[in-house]
Amino acid sequence: MKWEQLWLNYNKTTNYIDKEYFANIYQMTQGDIVNNAVKELKMAAMEMFGISITVEKSIGEKQGIILQLNNDDSLGEDGYQIEFEGSKLVLSAPTQKGILYGVFHIIRQAKQGEPLRNIHKKNIPNNKYRMINHWDDFGGNIERGYSGKSFFFGNREIMVNERTKDYARLMASIGINQISINNVNVREGASWLVTKKYLPKVKEIADIFEGYGIKLFLSINYASPIDVGGLDTADPLDDKVINWWQEAAKEIYEYIPNFGGFLVKADSEGRPGPFSYNRDHAQGANMLAKALEPFGGVVIWRCFVYNCRQDWRDTKTDRARAAYDNFATIDGFFASNVILQVKNGPVDFQVREPVSPLFGAMKSTNQILEVQIAQEYTGQQIDLCYLVPMWKEVLDFRTHCKEKLDTVADVVAGRTFGHVKCGMAAVTNTGDDSNWSGHDLAAANLYGYGRLAWNTSLSSEEIAREWISMTYNLDKMHEDTLLEILMGSWATYENYTSPLGIGWMVNISHHYGPNVEGYEYDVWGTYHRANHLAIGVDRTSKGTGMTQQYYPSNTRLYDNIDTCPQELLLFFHRIPYNHKLQSGKTLLQHIYDTHFKGVEEVEEMIKKWETLNEVICPVVYERVKVRFDRQLENSKNWRDVINTYFYRKTLIKDEKGRHIYE
Amino acid sequence: MKWEQLWLNYNKTTNYIDKEYFANIYQMTQGDIVNNAVKELKMAAMEMFGISITVEKSIGEKQGIILQLNNDDSLGEDGYQIEFEGSKLVLSAPTQKGILYGVFHIIRQAKQGEPLRNIHKKNIPNNKYRMINHWDDFGGNIERGYSGKSFFFGNREIMVNERTKDYARLMASIGINQISINNVNVREGASWLVTKKYLPKVKEIADIFEGYGIKLFLSINYASPIDVGGLDTADPLDDKVINWWQEAAKEIYEYIPNFGGFLVKADSEGRPGPFSYNRDHAQGANMLAKALEPFGGVVIWRCFVYNCRQDWRDTKTDRARAAYDNFATIDGFFASNVILQVKNGPVDFQVREPVSPLFGAMKSTNQILEVQIAQEYTGQQIDLCYLVPMWKEVLDFRTHCKEKLDTVADVVAGRTFGHVKCGMAAVTNTGDDSNWSGHDLAAANLYGYGRLAWNTSLSSEEIAREWISMTYNLDKMHEDTLLEILMGSWATYENYTSPLGIGWMVNISHHYGPNVEGYEYDVWGTYHRANHLAIGVDRTSKGTGMTQQYYPSNTRLYDNIDTCPQELLLFFHRIPYNHKLQSGKTLLQHIYDTHFKGVEEVEEMIKKWETLNEVICPVVYERVKVRFDRQLENSKNWRDVINTYFYRKTLIKDEKGRHIYE
Repeated sequence: MKWEQLWLNYNKTTNYIDKEYFANIYQMTQGDIVNNAVKELKMAAMEMFGISITVEKSIGEKQGIILQLNNDDSLGEDGYQIEFEGSKLVLSAPTQKGILYGVFHIIRQAKQGEPLRNIHKKNIPNNKYRMINHWDDFGGNIERGYSGKSFFFGNREIMVNERTKDYARLMASIGINQISINNVNVREGASWLVTKKYLPKVKEIADIFEGYGIKLFLSINYASPIDVGGLDTADPLDDKVINWWQEAAKEIYEYIPNFGGFLVKADSEGRPGPFSYNRDHAQGANMLAKALEPFGGVVIWRCFVYNCRQDWRDTKTDRARAAYDNFATIDGFFASNVILQVKNGPVDFQVREPVSPLFGAMKSTNQILEVQIAQEYTGQQIDLCYLVPMWKEVLDFRTHCKEKLDTVADVVAGRTFGHVKCGMAAVTNTGDDSNWSGHDLAAANLYGYGRLAWNTSLSSEEIAREWISMTYNLDKMHEDTLLEILMGSWATYENYTSPLGIGWMVNISHHYGPNVEGYEYDVWGTYHRANHLAIGVDRTSKGTGMTQQYYPSNTRLYDNIDTCPQELLLFFHRIPYNHKLQSGKTLLQHIYDTHFKGVEEVEEMIKKWETLNEVICPVVYERVKVRFDRQLENSKNWRDVINTYFYRKTLIKDEKGRHIYE
Repeated sequence: MKWEQLWLNYNKTTNYIDKEYFANIYQMTQGDIVNNAVKELKMAAMEMFGISITVEKSIGEKQGIILQLNNDDSLGEDGYQIEFEGSKLVLSAPTQKGILYGVFHIIRQAKQGEPLRNIHKKNIPNNKYRMINHWDDFGGNIERGYSGKSFFFGNREIMVNERTKDYARLMASIGINQISINNVNVREGASWLVTKKYLPKVKEIADIFEGYGIKLFLSINYASPIDVGGLDTADPLDDKVINWWQEAAKEIYEYIPNFGGFLVKADSEGRPGPFSYNRDHAQGANMLAKALEPFGGVVIWRCFVYNCRQDWRDTKTDRARAAYDNFATIDGFFASNVILQVKNGPVDFQVREPVSPLFGAMKSTNQILEVQIAQEYTGQQIDLCYLVPMWKEVLDFRTHCKEKLDTVADVVAGRTFGHVKCGMAAVTNTGDDSNWSGHDLAAANLYGYGRLAWNTSLSSEEIAREWISMTYNLDKMHEDTLLEILMGSWATYENYTSPLGIGWMVNISHHYGPNVEGYEYDVWGTYHRANHLAIGVDRTSKGTGMTQQYYPSNTRLYDNIDTCPQELLLFFHRIPYNHKLQSGKTLLQHIYDTHFKGVEEVEEMIKKWETLNEVICPVVYERVKVRFDRQLENSKNWRDVINTYFYRKTLIKDEKGRHIYE
């Protein structure tokens, strides 16, 4: 199958003011990464401007771009500097990687038709770790994948081909520098990826990645010493186990000297972990960290740990408390090359959640913010949901862990507590569909994640506009239209799905479409406990106390029904249907209104999309149109199920007399 | 894995009054079937009485059993006669099969310690077809299987071994004479079972079956001409298709001259069928029937056809109408070697349904009654549910299609309309667990089904008692205890699950455990539409009109809320929670009461089982005990989910003040 080039699709461009810079490259440093950078420049110059670049190893007279190393440590491992000297643009960095990122910046600028002189002089990423997590299974399926099969694995074989390289280019172009290639639920033989059996082939991917400044990570099975090594235990304090992992690490680094490390889902949803041996997560993680430490590797340990066998009758246990309860207490016990990876919200990637109280709560522990580009609960790349605004809200959230520099962005960038191993990670939305992300517009989330991880102060709108102009050649009017479609899509999705932070209400297992009580009496700790008069779980200080996991001013904010942000009302409070919201509407009427509105908004989105019929290429236009039609059907079903559910519960009609099915 | 012998476990027996008959067999006819009968007698005599039987080909002086053919056509294909002449028991039949059934009868009598002279002189089965349907997939899993893997198929290979033979013995011993070995959802390559690729191996099973009087059937994929034959259509009126099936049939009969025919699930739940080509089911079935006709084969065509993509907002479509609507109108159009297989109820094997109105509605069409031994919706062989009482109710149901001989038993036995190709079929509950049926006591359903299909006038209690005494050596007191456990189990299961015929309310897909609204907004046509005040779908003449599919006196019975049998009230009516039942209780209180009672009954069952601790072998005792413990947990969860669901809906408390979770 042929695949597309997304935002690296170098269409012919006319009249670019700075195209003469692309005539000559003065490459003053050699190496795989900078060579790839030069290759990219050549391809871009040829395809955009029809220019065949001349590359020289010493600086000549003609206008052009100088690529050279510098000694400016302030730029860090990934930063770069762009200056102008006479007719030359000088791109310099302390590392070849920095030059590669600078080159992609130059191309981005050109592709958008912006003058190169508008590029800031110094460009340094906010986050040191800008990571992508694949949930690709060894058999070739992708867990929560909505864009086809894996392009890494097919039927328990590793695939390496031209697409692997294009993937590395795409990722490097948005600043991604770490990729774990296999699912955190390590199954179907993927436990063996860390062994000789597969390392030669994993190395091939790692080599391609390395040429683009990307470190390869593997998700590991905590029980590997048993399942792979044939030991009788995986106890992290057992000498045999310690030794097994040390030997495994040694072997991995023999094949892949630049190997990033392990990503670990342990003691979660049936995965093995240190709890089986009465060890805590610090003991569990540190053992692995020690094995990787001699080689510079890290352990990324997910905090997605909760009781997934809860009894619905148990109203004391609150799943939203779990990550904090499991990890905040062991702050300070983790090795310096362990990083905790924390989901953005306390539950699981719902369309609306508060920020996880773990951010800011662990002063002595490296933390990575985990978001989900894959739209598991946000429309599965059938429905449009531009997620950058959600991630922005998370990053901008003030934890109040300090007077200043207390946002989530500050914490995970290391500004708050001075951590150096931290940043962002995202579960990706790619697959082997020709457009990579199923829904063409879902590529905005992939692109946006990378750009945001690099520069968390970019606005959602800036990122969207940049993605649009990198991907499509639209005039301002049509660009604005597409921008509007993207910018409103999260709110729209929220409008027609579960209201006010209550979450879930989705079909079991596959998580698409409404099922209000699907999880209500199940074991997953996801209950709304709606009755004839009220809905919600009280998570305030008077309820499960989950609000107390936040710093005091946030606790107060959420505890008080009058100050709690409306969109989170049903996350934190149990509320009668006739409760008046700030708007003066009852809760019930608010639910009806938002659900009717959500569908209307989808209809408007579709109308807007239809105005792009002439300016978007027909294949893409149709692909998106088909998905919008499915989204419309889905939104109507959500509207009707939710409205009918609450109508049946209350027998209170819509004030505006709109039709609700009985 | 070793397997058990169930009711053919010939334990040592002392003091049997008639054991001397087992000393000598006078075998006056030869052949595979009668040889197997003699073998069975030898084994039984040796194991029960320590007697080594002498077999002679002419009648001698000593006491013994004479096996011989007779010319009494009134006995039919399967009947037999038992007479006494001096010191001889004379077992005679027009066929060897009859002799085999008679031998199993003699052994059964002996095993129960009953005098042989108590056997009726003439023994003729009520039903000509006494069929077992396996839902075994070619990959080795069993759809709705709760007893391990298939013993016919493993990883797309056919297995033939000693267990195959023991299975044939077990089935023949209870009178089964037809077995379809593969799932009606024909997948995983099972479409190829009808081809040369697999027929040699299928033949091996068929040969074993034939030695025990059993005809082998295969479930076929209606799209085989495409999927196997490489044609571009499966249209039943297309000459290429007609020809393909004729050739296929010819080939099958070359391998298996005694092949029974095809079992077909067409145009149902995504299966291909004649609807794809705008042909009706008669056209679809007759084409296959014509291909089989020259060889004496039949087509068994399932009537489980309904719209499985219903919109929950559509209140006009009523799934319960579907089988009748699809088939009653084409009565008279089916070939004489087509048999329609009709599920006992109009929906799908729920714990309580009315009888399908199709019975008695098709005067010119062969019909088989389909029941489900596998406990898909009745506890999955974790919870105990002795199903013979349910089947008895179905068989005894008066359709009023005629003045007399109008019960379902009459219809499917051929007494009503004179059909000759008819009887009963059952989806079986077997797998490769050592005890065959997962729950040891679930073997009573397998045994009971066979015995009932042979003699529909046996009572549930007679059958249960017979099974107990065939399986366990208990004194009268303990036998009574086990009988009580079995006899009450269906009512108990009904008490703690979905009330009064409403059905469903189960977890999606796997169908174990409660989920009241799991299917409520789904596509399967299974809605209860409960709101704050009432629950149920009106299927009366004023509602969907489904009651009008019955003959008038039944229509009147069900239409009237006062005459409708209470256990079916929520199948036929929409009823307010405060409606007073005959008992004087409100509907809601009835629901609360039955659900509390259901759990109490499980607790009582367990206490009864515990009194058998000393008299049931420890392995079996423990296996059953473990399942009872799981049943108790399940019943409590059902009780609490159902009660909480209705409490949340109504906020009306239990009158007796028992605890209902909020």
